[in-house]
This record gives sequence, structure tokens and C-alpha cells, in this order.
Amino acid sequence: MSALAAPSGKQLPPKARLEAIAAFCHAVLVAVGAGKETAEAATRAMLHGSRLGIDSHGIRLLDHYVAALRAGRVNPRPRLRMSAGFGAVAALDADDGHGALATYHAMDCAVELAARFGIGAIGVRNSSHFGPAGAYALAAAEAGCIGIAMCNSDSFVRLHDGATRFHGTNPIACAVPQEGGKPWLLDMATSAVPYNRVQLYKSLGRRLPDKVASDGEGRDTEDPQKVEMLAPLGADFGFKGAGLAGMVEIFSAVLTGMRLSFDILPMGGPDLCTPRGMGAFVLALKPDAFTSDERFQDGMQRYLKELRRSPPRAGAAVMAPGDREWAEAERREREGVPLDPATVEAFERLGGRYGIDLPFDR
Amino acid sequence: MSALAAPSGKQLPPKARLEAIAAFCHAVLVAVGAGKETAEAATRAMLHGSRLGIDSHGIRLLDHYVAALRAGRVNPRPRLRMSAGFGAVAALDADDGHGALATYHAMDCAVELAARFGIGAIGVRNSSHFGPAGAYALAAAEAGCIGIAMCNSDSFVRLHDGATRFHGTNPIACAVPQEGGKPWLLDMATSAVPYNRVQLYKSLGRRLPDKVASDGEGRDTEDPQKVEMLAPLGADFGFKGAGLAGMVEIFSAVLTGMRLSFDILPMGGPDLCTPRGMGAFVLALKPDAFTSDERFQDGMQRYLKELRRSPPRAGAAVMAPGDREWAEAERREREGVPLDPATVEAFERLGGRYGIDLPFDR
Repeated sequence: MSALAAPSGKQLPPKARLEAIAAFCHAVLVAVGAGKETAEAATRAMLHGSRLGIDSHGIRLLDHYVAALRAGRVNPRPRLRMSAGFGAVAALDADDGHGALATYHAMDCAVELAARFGIGAIGVRNSSHFGPAGAYALAAAEAGCIGIAMCNSDSFVRLHDGATRFHGTNPIACAVPQEGGKPWLLDMATSAVPYNRVQLYKSLGRRLPDKVASDGEGRDTEDPQKVEMLAPLGADFGFKGAGLAGMVEIFSAVLTGMRLSFDILPMGGPDLCTPRGMGAFVLALKPDAFTSDERFQDGMQRYLKELRRSPPRAGAAVMAPGDREWAEAERREREGVPLDPATVEAFERLGGRYGIDLPFDR
Repeated sequence: MSALAAPSGKQLPPKARLEAIAAFCHAVLVAVGAGKETAEAATRAMLHGSRLGIDSHGIRLLDHYVAALRAGRVNPRPRLRMSAGFGAVAALDADDGHGALATYHAMDCAVELAARFGIGAIGVRNSSHFGPAGAYALAAAEAGCIGIAMCNSDSFVRLHDGATRFHGTNPIACAVPQEGGKPWLLDMATSAVPYNRVQLYKSLGRRLPDKVASDGEGRDTEDPQKVEMLAPLGADFGFKGAGLAGMVEIFSAVLTGMRLSFDILPMGGPDLCTPRGMGAFVLALKPDAFTSDERFQDGMQRYLKELRRSPPRAGAAVMAPGDREWAEAERREREGVPLDPATVEAFERLGGRYGIDLPFDR
């Protein structure tokens, strides 16, 4: 996932403390006109990515968010409102606000519904790029619920046996609380690899694994220079990855009446003025509505204990979803976050423009 | 999926009409002592598999179900009861009954809850093998809801980088209703391939695709003779398949207080007397609780239209989840179901034992 692997021989990337990065991001977002809640939510989501080592969805997004807020794509001070509601579900209209604000709020509402009904689900309307799906699933787990978050996104991934970009990388995240430990945390794109893996391999001159990306005719290619689209998860069994992507598409876009992936304006522009009309979907579920909390926690403990002591194949290790990320989070809390050159450049430019102290020494 | 590909030169397999097969299965189950509801539900689930071409989860299971009912593993006349309930969720105790009876009933309850709350979820306890997950998701779609069904099962699949059987093939199914057409229907194991693919390739002397199965040390093997476990979906990115399998495990077993995959008695015995204590999870969601039915249906229509006319790669075709299965169902409704030799043998044996007319001519 990391785009930070520096070619050997180069100087080490600068590092910054998480708290300093958070303060910087928040100050920049406020400076560009974002309301306090938007600045807080966007910062929290980016810091989730940068803390857990999911750098593709971390603070490298700040520059993009600033551009989208300035140009008008993202409403800096939206009025969120429930546009429909029925029992344990609701639709949240995000008024073209930041996806992180919308989705954290949606998950808060889903958790409230779960407290009343055992389960709660929110379809999010008129939202925008929400960053790391795992951030919102985790918010539910931190409130004692199982959380699921999904979002479709602009097309990058072919169908199984397809020859054009169709779905977005359409992530699914799920988080499960467990006593005395960090939540079980799955956050996965339904594509075979993230697009930034292709970009990284291109810059490193490395060949891609087999069957993860395709050329303009949908043929498998291992040459990152020829990549025009990603393959769905599953290689020869890509109908599974494409099916999961379709499920995300239906929950995020169809159920909310929002744009299908192939109708979403490209994230990178050139149009950064027009709202993208994105949907998302979150669900929260209260374990003790199904079984006693003790029984649920016993089950999680036993499952994770057996998983972690399960024999690995030679030279490898087995991990639960999230284990790698929580270990990286501990390291980064201790040692700071390594910053890639593009982020350093963006931070220097933004810090200069708005007169905000940088979170690192140069 | 089909185990019916006969080596060329052999005679064509016998075929039987769906209605005749259903009557035969029902009569055999009643003859072995199953209550009417159990016989109906188990027949309905098997016929789902055999109608849609999912032969691994079709009528080839009859012989197994008869053995499990006779030996005592499955309670032929269970008293299903809600053992916990809270708002839009509940736990259903299946009294060691047949998994199809339990799961169809659970989905009926979830649909009822969705009518009242927009969403409903049921954790199923003390259940047994439920056959094709898609059958229960489809039941929700036939009632106008989006349906999800999951179940863990006895261990067959290694973890990512693991060297032992850990998860079951842990399927996820999702069905979405669409006006004027068959439901969108995803029904996928979270393993790379089903185990019966390995058995089929073994009998045909064919090599497996790369990275779908492993030997006893967890090393990839393409030799079906050496296969000791399946790989999780995703090949080099098997942490995604293993993560999805874990999600199914948590929803089906942990949330219900039931057995984890590695604790479930093997499906095939030798112990067919002891109930297996299996869990399952179903969810139903009412689309018009989130957006207008018209808007939802418009979105589904447009999504599927664009998907089906999306350009395929050379020599291939693109399909929505379920398209292949619905086409096969039409063919089988017209032409009957081809029967594999093991099923023919089992039907002859069971028909003889209970004095029931066979659904095919020999």
C-alpha cells in the first residue's frame, strides 16, 4: 500500500508527528474556508489513513481536498439533513459536503439507530470522496458496534472479461470491536490492486504481478506503462471481485439514487467545480442484540487467538485483518509518519500560501 | 461449477424434469421422517441449486441429507423459536433442524422486520448445512427486498500465507430485485475455487489454475492429487478473500455463539449423529426505505443495461452476477436437469429403499 518506498541511496524521507500533521491539516482546511466540522472530519479521516499506514488514503489527499474546496466541487459549509427515514434506516443528504463529514455523521446515526433497533443503516446522498472506508467502519467499532462502510468511485476497474473501465475500486470495510484489543478491521478495494500500486511500480520500473491490471483492450499486462484499467479481485475468478464491486455499487449508488461509477466526474479533474453526486452506505450492528456480550467477546477472542497461532507457510506469517495496520499505527505514533516527496511539496506550498507552520523540519 | 462435464465418448447423462425431481426429493425426505416443512425447505433449496446450474449445491445433497436425518445429526421435526430479539434484529434457534428450513424461515422473518423497520437481520443458531447461500438471498429479492445470506462451514480453506485448513468456504450471497427481470444474484464462496472443482479436475486428470489450492504445507500446487486445502480468493492478494471469509465467520458463528469453522464436525462424517451447532446470518433491506422505488428501479435498470452492453475482451462476454445462472435455469426448465452418475446411483438406491418412483427413465 505504501507509496513511500524510496529508491535505495536516496536520503530518508522527512517524518512528522501525528499531532503536528493533524494540526496542520486542520489549519489548512479552515484557512481555505471549510467549517470547523468539515475540517475536523476530513482531518480525522486522513489521519486514519496516515496513522495506519494506508498512505494512499492519508494526508496525501489534503492537497486534493483543498483544490476541491476552493474550486467549488466540495461545499465547505454544508447543511447535512435526513432526507428520508423509516424505522432503522435513513437517507442522509450531505449537501455536496466533504465525504468524511457526511460519512462519519452517517455512521454516528447508524450507531444511534443500532442502539434503538439492534441495527441501523444510512444511505448517504450528495457526498464526495470519503477517503479510507475503514475510518467509518472503525468509528462504529469504537462505539461498540460492528460497522460496515462502502462507497463507489469513478471508474478504474474492468468487469470480469471486460475491456473498459466500469466500476470504481469500490471498497468494502468492516470493523468488529473486541475487548482488550484493537478492532478486527478489514478495509479492501474490490479491485485486484489499488491504482497507486500501478503508479508506484511505474516509477520504480518494476513489473506488476500477473492478472491484476489490463491494457486498453482488457488484456492482462504486467507492464505498468501499458495499464489502462485494473482487474477485479480474483484473477481467473474475477467475477467474484466484480460481483462484490457491483454489490458496493448497488448499495452506494443505486440505493441512494446517486451516480454510478461510470457517471462520476473523475476525481482528479479537470472539472473541480461541479459536485460529484456521490453516494455511500454505512451499517452498524449491535452484537448484544443477537447474543450476550460475553458470548460474543469469547467468540472473538477464541477466533483471533486461533487465527494468530495458526501455522504459516514457510517464510510467511498469518495475520488478522488490521493486525498489520495496528502495528504500523503503533510505530507511527512512536516515530512519526514518513512523508513522500509529493506530500512534502504540497505541505510546503499550502503552508506558505496560508501562513501555517509546517509539521516537519526541512 | 458443474461436476457434470462427461469425458467425451461416454453416453449422455440422463435428464429429469425439475418438477419430477422436486417430487422425488420431497417424498424421500418425508419417507425418512422429515416433517413436511423440512421436506419442503430442503427440496426448495436443492432445487435452487439444480435449477440454476449450481450442481455442487443441488440435488446431489439429497443422499447426504437423508444420511444426516437418519443418523440424528439433523432433527427431522425441529421446533424453531426466536431466542432473542431486539427491534429490527433477532436470533432464531433452529433446534438442530435442517439448515434450509432454518434459513428460509430466518429470511422470512428478516423480510417482515424490513417491512416494519426498513431493514432486518437474523442470526441463526443450532442450524446445519444450508446448501446454496443464494437460495435465501433470492427469497428476499422475491419479496421485494435486497437480501444477504452468509454461513461458515467446516474448515477447507487456508489463511493468506497459512499452512492449515482454517475457514470454511464461507459463502456470501446477495440478491437485488429488479423490475421486469430476474434478480441480480451474487453467490460466491470466499475461497478461490469450490472444493468440488478440485475433485472434478482430479477425476479428469486436469491441472488446476495457479494459486487456487495448496498442499499440506500451504504451498501452491496445480496438481489436484496434492491438494490438501483451498486458497482464499485473491491469489497473491488472498488477504482479501481471507478477510471476507473472516467477516462471514464473525457474522455467522461469533454473532450467534455458534461453532467456528475449525470446530465444526466434518460435513462428510464419520460422525453423522451429533448436531453440528452451525450458525448463519441473513439480512433483508427494503430499497424504498432509502429512496423512491422508481428511482431505485431506474438505477438498477441503467446499471444492468450499461453493464451488459459494456465491451468484452476478445473472445469473451460480460455478464451480471446471476446472468449465467438464470440462462441455465431457463434451459433446465425447458430441457430438464442432467444427472451425474453419483446422483443417479443415489436416487436409484433411495427410490428402491423407500419405494418411490424415480424422476427419470433408465
